[in-house]
Amino acid sequence: MAAAGRPVLGLDIGGTKLAVGVVASDGTVSGFLVEPTRREEGHEIVLRRLFDLGRRSVAAARAEGALGAGEDIAAVGIACGGPLDSRRGVLTGPLHLPGWIDVPVVDLARREFGVPAALDNDATAAAYGEYRFGAGRGTETMVYLTVSTGVGGGAVINGRLHRGAAGNGGEYGHIAVQPGGRPGFGNRAGTLEAYASGTAIAQRATEVVAALGSTGRSSVLAALPVIRAEDVSSAARDGDPVAREIWDETVEILASAVADLVNILEPNLVVLGGGVTRSGALLLDPLRRHVYAQAMPPAAAAVRIELAELGDTVGVVGAGAVALDLAGSGAPITLDAHV
Amino acid sequence: MAAAGRPVLGLDIGGTKLAVGVVASDGTVSGFLVEPTRREEGHEIVLRRLFDLGRRSVAAARAEGALGAGEDIAAVGIACGGPLDSRRGVLTGPLHLPGWIDVPVVDLARREFGVPAALDNDATAAAYGEYRFGAGRGTETMVYLTVSTGVGGGAVINGRLHRGAAGNGGEYGHIAVQPGGRPGFGNRAGTLEAYASGTAIAQRATEVVAALGSTGRSSVLAALPVIRAEDVSSAARDGDPVAREIWDETVEILASAVADLVNILEPNLVVLGGGVTRSGALLLDPLRRHVYAQAMPPAAAAVRIELAELGDTVGVVGAGAVALDLAGSGAPITLDAHV
Repeated sequence: MAAAGRPVLGLDIGGTKLAVGVVASDGTVSGFLVEPTRREEGHEIVLRRLFDLGRRSVAAARAEGALGAGEDIAAVGIACGGPLDSRRGVLTGPLHLPGWIDVPVVDLARREFGVPAALDNDATAAAYGEYRFGAGRGTETMVYLTVSTGVGGGAVINGRLHRGAAGNGGEYGHIAVQPGGRPGFGNRAGTLEAYASGTAIAQRATEVVAALGSTGRSSVLAALPVIRAEDVSSAARDGDPVAREIWDETVEILASAVADLVNILEPNLVVLGGGVTRSGALLLDPLRRHVYAQAMPPAAAAVRIELAELGDTVGVVGAGAVALDLAGSGAPITLDAHV
Repeated sequence: MAAAGRPVLGLDIGGTKLAVGVVASDGTVSGFLVEPTRREEGHEIVLRRLFDLGRRSVAAARAEGALGAGEDIAAVGIACGGPLDSRRGVLTGPLHLPGWIDVPVVDLARREFGVPAALDNDATAAAYGEYRFGAGRGTETMVYLTVSTGVGGGAVINGRLHRGAAGNGGEYGHIAVQPGGRPGFGNRAGTLEAYASGTAIAQRATEVVAALGSTGRSSVLAALPVIRAEDVSSAARDGDPVAREIWDETVEILASAVADLVNILEPNLVVLGGGVTRSGALLLDPLRRHVYAQAMPPAAAAVRIELAELGDTVGVVGAGAVALDLAGSGAPITLDAHV
């Protein structure tokens, strides 16, 4: 228990970016560093760079005074997209890191840093970060939904991070919102991710704009060489009717999935994070209306819906939150230490 | 703690039937009694009859030797459809009991029997019954889905019964399976219950049969004065092509919802109960195929799907399981004692 209270190192392995930082027991981040993943270099080279980045982060945190002279990090937390096996600490085959099959990242980190290490699905870790240090502080049961390039999420149930039987906690992007609809991952069509992810919003808008000619309607989106999700939200905000329709449909689909999560888990709080939620009230206001109208009345009366607070550091803070638990338990290894 | 090990009384308040029984610490039921609810008589008269039935059950259990001479029940558990408030022990307005508004059933039972009492949503209690004494014995995270007149369910998460912020645990019948589809409860259309409940299966079949004339197709269902869900499943089993289509669609919709629950909660086990699941392999075999094909591979690999084991006593056993926890804790009152 001597380790409790000491800062930890959080490592976030994204498809395009690596992010690292030293996380104190109050959730503050020091030595926050980001660099491109360059996943095509393969896991050996990328993890070497990740660990080096982690060492630079510790040095920077020490320079900032976040670590005392002679004080070292107490544990390492790693967040990565799934599928992964958090109990064994192995990346089994993350969708966003092609070819990273059965990489024992926890063992590697433990050997590199000489402290306990833990691995969690990035959205699961982010859920825990928001619960411990963000929008979810003080709640009991919280659902976190992140909407960015993809859609993911996680839950803290009665104060405990939910990891589930497969150790990925939950894959909210792969719940069905329109059975038989747009292609999603694997055999499942019509998933939330296939409609409401940033990628899907951009694709849907591109399809609608391509078909505009035959309708006689026009849209500011038609002038763009490439349409991104943020173009759709900003054009919708500016009153473009075509963008507005795409946006409204997106919000309705997201709200239906959130109402499902509310009906299934009866949380005290739903936290919405990820790039698409930077649209703020344009998303949150109508989404709240839809959810409160659709969820079962007692569940609707019990739940708040809020935007995430941690922003770009959420992955690092989430990984750090998991590592703080590990350090606080005094457990020497990851196996069963965080389940 | 002296109360641990002693039998408890389980009371199950259904829309059509009251069921009661004495539940031993190993889950066996004695003095199981059932009588019509006759809800139109109002909650005062019905609860008076329910409590009398409970007393007769205790006497019968004593006659059967399930209670020793001078031994009394340690607690009372009550299961009822929602919405209700399990923390306060109040029926706030169950959908299946019109006019039962804010009935403090836990207080009433406590005064009647002079022992601690607890109230849970019937599907939540049933989930706990299957977890403690039925198909879910020994699992960690279990989802229970009951498909009968309506659709409901509950979950045990990491060994702990999930009650949720609103105390109903989860309302799986009200997740959306076909947005904008058939009318469901309140403002929500296209819910699981609106398609896959016994009531909905019968309605859908009635609609299809009424429209058969214009198609030139025929079905054995057309000869029935009233079509029930079990008529659809038995005609489907006998190879009637129209019944088969309705049944296949029902199974696909149920499977999609189960795949959602698997993706959201990553359970070790899904247990299917309720009258519609009496169709057995006709439901279970294709449902398993759909779920394993649609759920995320790690979640699919981790989950088993089985039929419930407790049958008609599930409500009483579930209420009893909750009461056994209450008795084992030695807690004198319900408030916070079982959350």
